[in-house]
Amino acid sequence: MTGQPLPGFRDFFPPEHSALRSIFEAWREASRRSGFSEYEGPELESLELYTEKSGDEIVAQLYHFKDKGDREVALRPEMTPTFARMVASQHRNYRKPIKWFSVPRLFRYERPQRGRHREHYQWNCDMVGEKSVAAEAELIATLCLGLSLLGLGANDVVVKVSDRSWWDAFLAKHGVEEKDKPGVLRTLDKLEGSTPEQRKDKLGKLAGFVEEAWQGQGADSEALKAVHQGVKDLGYGGWCETDLRVVRGLAYYTGVVFEVHDRAGKLRAVAGGGRYDDLLKKLGGEDLPAVGFGMGDAVLAELLKEKKVLLEKKGGAEIFVVAEKAEKSLALALVGQMRRNGWSVDYDPGAGKWGKQLEVAEAKGARWGLLVGRESAEGRLGLKELATRKQLEIRWSRAADENICLEPNPGEWAKVVG
Amino acid sequence: MTGQPLPGFRDFFPPEHSALRSIFEAWREASRRSGFSEYEGPELESLELYTEKSGDEIVAQLYHFKDKGDREVALRPEMTPTFARMVASQHRNYRKPIKWFSVPRLFRYERPQRGRHREHYQWNCDMVGEKSVAAEAELIATLCLGLSLLGLGANDVVVKVSDRSWWDAFLAKHGVEEKDKPGVLRTLDKLEGSTPEQRKDKLGKLAGFVEEAWQGQGADSEALKAVHQGVKDLGYGGWCETDLRVVRGLAYYTGVVFEVHDRAGKLRAVAGGGRYDDLLKKLGGEDLPAVGFGMGDAVLAELLKEKKVLLEKKGGAEIFVVAEKAEKSLALALVGQMRRNGWSVDYDPGAGKWGKQLEVAEAKGARWGLLVGRESAEGRLGLKELATRKQLEIRWSRAADENICLEPNPGEWAKVVG
Repeated sequence: MTGQPLPGFRDFFPPEHSALRSIFEAWREASRRSGFSEYEGPELESLELYTEKSGDEIVAQLYHFKDKGDREVALRPEMTPTFARMVASQHRNYRKPIKWFSVPRLFRYERPQRGRHREHYQWNCDMVGEKSVAAEAELIATLCLGLSLLGLGANDVVVKVSDRSWWDAFLAKHGVEEKDKPGVLRTLDKLEGSTPEQRKDKLGKLAGFVEEAWQGQGADSEALKAVHQGVKDLGYGGWCETDLRVVRGLAYYTGVVFEVHDRAGKLRAVAGGGRYDDLLKKLGGEDLPAVGFGMGDAVLAELLKEKKVLLEKKGGAEIFVVAEKAEKSLALALVGQMRRNGWSVDYDPGAGKWGKQLEVAEAKGARWGLLVGRESAEGRLGLKELATRKQLEIRWSRAADENICLEPNPGEWAKVVG
Repeated sequence: MTGQPLPGFRDFFPPEHSALRSIFEAWREASRRSGFSEYEGPELESLELYTEKSGDEIVAQLYHFKDKGDREVALRPEMTPTFARMVASQHRNYRKPIKWFSVPRLFRYERPQRGRHREHYQWNCDMVGEKSVAAEAELIATLCLGLSLLGLGANDVVVKVSDRSWWDAFLAKHGVEEKDKPGVLRTLDKLEGSTPEQRKDKLGKLAGFVEEAWQGQGADSEALKAVHQGVKDLGYGGWCETDLRVVRGLAYYTGVVFEVHDRAGKLRAVAGGGRYDDLLKKLGGEDLPAVGFGMGDAVLAELLKEKKVLLEKKGGAEIFVVAEKAEKSLALALVGQMRRNGWSVDYDPGAGKWGKQLEVAEAKGARWGLLVGRESAEGRLGLKELATRKQLEIRWSRAADENICLEPNPGEWAKVVG
């Protein structure tokens, strides 16, 4: 048996998984607070769902195959096509604007590298049915809330906002024909880190004007002004700035686009999104305006590690019950009872010697040892805070309904031990 | 674009997803309280990881293909091989017994039917490194806790416990040779719902003895007695009974096995598991004893729906801010502030007329409407409980740190409105 996952895939042992969960929890909490409802779709879809949106070029990056029913299928590389399919089939049942989010697992056959895997998780938030840029402001505020719940602030990240319609007008003004625009936009998208010479080379006579735009000499469009105002009203003004260098490579964006970057500029984009008013119609759905973003777990985790706000915990229970062999039934009853009351409780099922059980309790990282010795026959138990070795006695008794009462109960232990 | 998922796959719109999440939350909470730590692995693995454990016959049920790097890969049909691979690679870093759980998504190319899909979620709990049947009792108690957190009790479900070693001894006693045992066990596993005649037909001279065993005339083995005692001590005695008809088809079980069924016996098994002491070694890992169970989401959801304890909610925010156009900035500031304080808050980004905003608030199922009208300039806001139409006035002010204070704050609204 091979001991490793496939190249580009990840095993999440309990410490790494607890870090991943803290990311998921922040994403879900920010979504909930912002009024987004969660949905999920299949991880395997018809291949044509992807080729229809992105053309055949995407196939090179897909995990696709023929299933046993002779269907051409693919592991989803992104959530938007599934989202579009689901919105098309049920949007009539939902009041607009629809605010949905998801935390899908996505698959791409790419060269694995730092912060880029063949399988990753992504927070997807979308709003459908709202034409005004209030939607963009709301989406940006939601992602800022998510990042702040993870311990990041405006000093750590920046939301760079740009406007595809501004670029549209810019290109038209400088004589670029409609049919050539997508190509020029793709070129612009790939200029990050280029030298002025390289830009001159690739953009020809446009280069000088682009240079000016990059240096912020273009005034914000009306749309950008309104987005900045909305984001500021919602409390995230300091997180946001106009940066026309952001164009987003994907062909389907139609208006405001944005990317989240680390302030130091060391990593790839943490998140990206924008307005895609034509896509839902193109994918066979209704003609509905839409704004959305995606935020992957991998680059985000890199950033959180760098800022030392991502904690890897081994897990394990808070309370560990240690018992004499003769008291095993009482010990198990205590375990069952405390768990039903909401506490996380463990014990040594092999029931080794007293000292060995205590050793397991410490090795597993429990905070409390609840000691069930001979004195338990007289209603007395020992309580030990394992790290400080403080110890005291507590009382147990059986109520009329057979439930076991502890005095003090676990919620009071920290206070009592002091 | 096809509006439907592939056959056997499911879309989870917000109501269905909220039902699914309540299942996940119960699984995770029961695991946490019972001292299990979460892990996760890749959904795509080497094909040989599955053929090594289950032989080539499993391939007929797999989604497998050659990836762009010419590797034979498969979507995972179960978690145990990944779990075994991960345990083998890191078990030395963890104190035994290892208690890990996962909530993987699994894929099988099967005929879709009620409660059986081509893609489903499964709660997997495993304990590694414990020889005594205290492990079985702990696993059974954990799954009972999970079911009880979902609102099910011993009147709804039964944990049927059996013992493969008992059957081993039984078959030996009746002259079945070692090499024929797996075949006979598989036959026994498929006798559910058969007539005595059919059993005679399939089992020959064994039939009479099997009949006696089925009718509970065999005494519990020592292992079964100890499991029942442990489960009873942990508080779930009423959930559990010996039923030797349970044998579990899979070849790798070595001792106690168990299945959870609905008491009415109408559905397929809700969960199944048992001891598999030889499997980790066979899969190239260490020689470690292990017990585990799996519980799928599909049959469980059927049962919860039948018992009417599975709630589908549309989601949506609790508080909806309704504002005059002139007060938009203040309204957004209130939205941002309340969200940062942990409340779920929504508003109409299109900012239609007052009446339309209230209508959206109601359509989206908000409990509270926070009304920001002209009186807000004097520090006054309206608060409306939308379902009861009760309305009262509350105060807002800006603190020195620019934060907005509400009086009373949202935590007190229910009490104040009464």
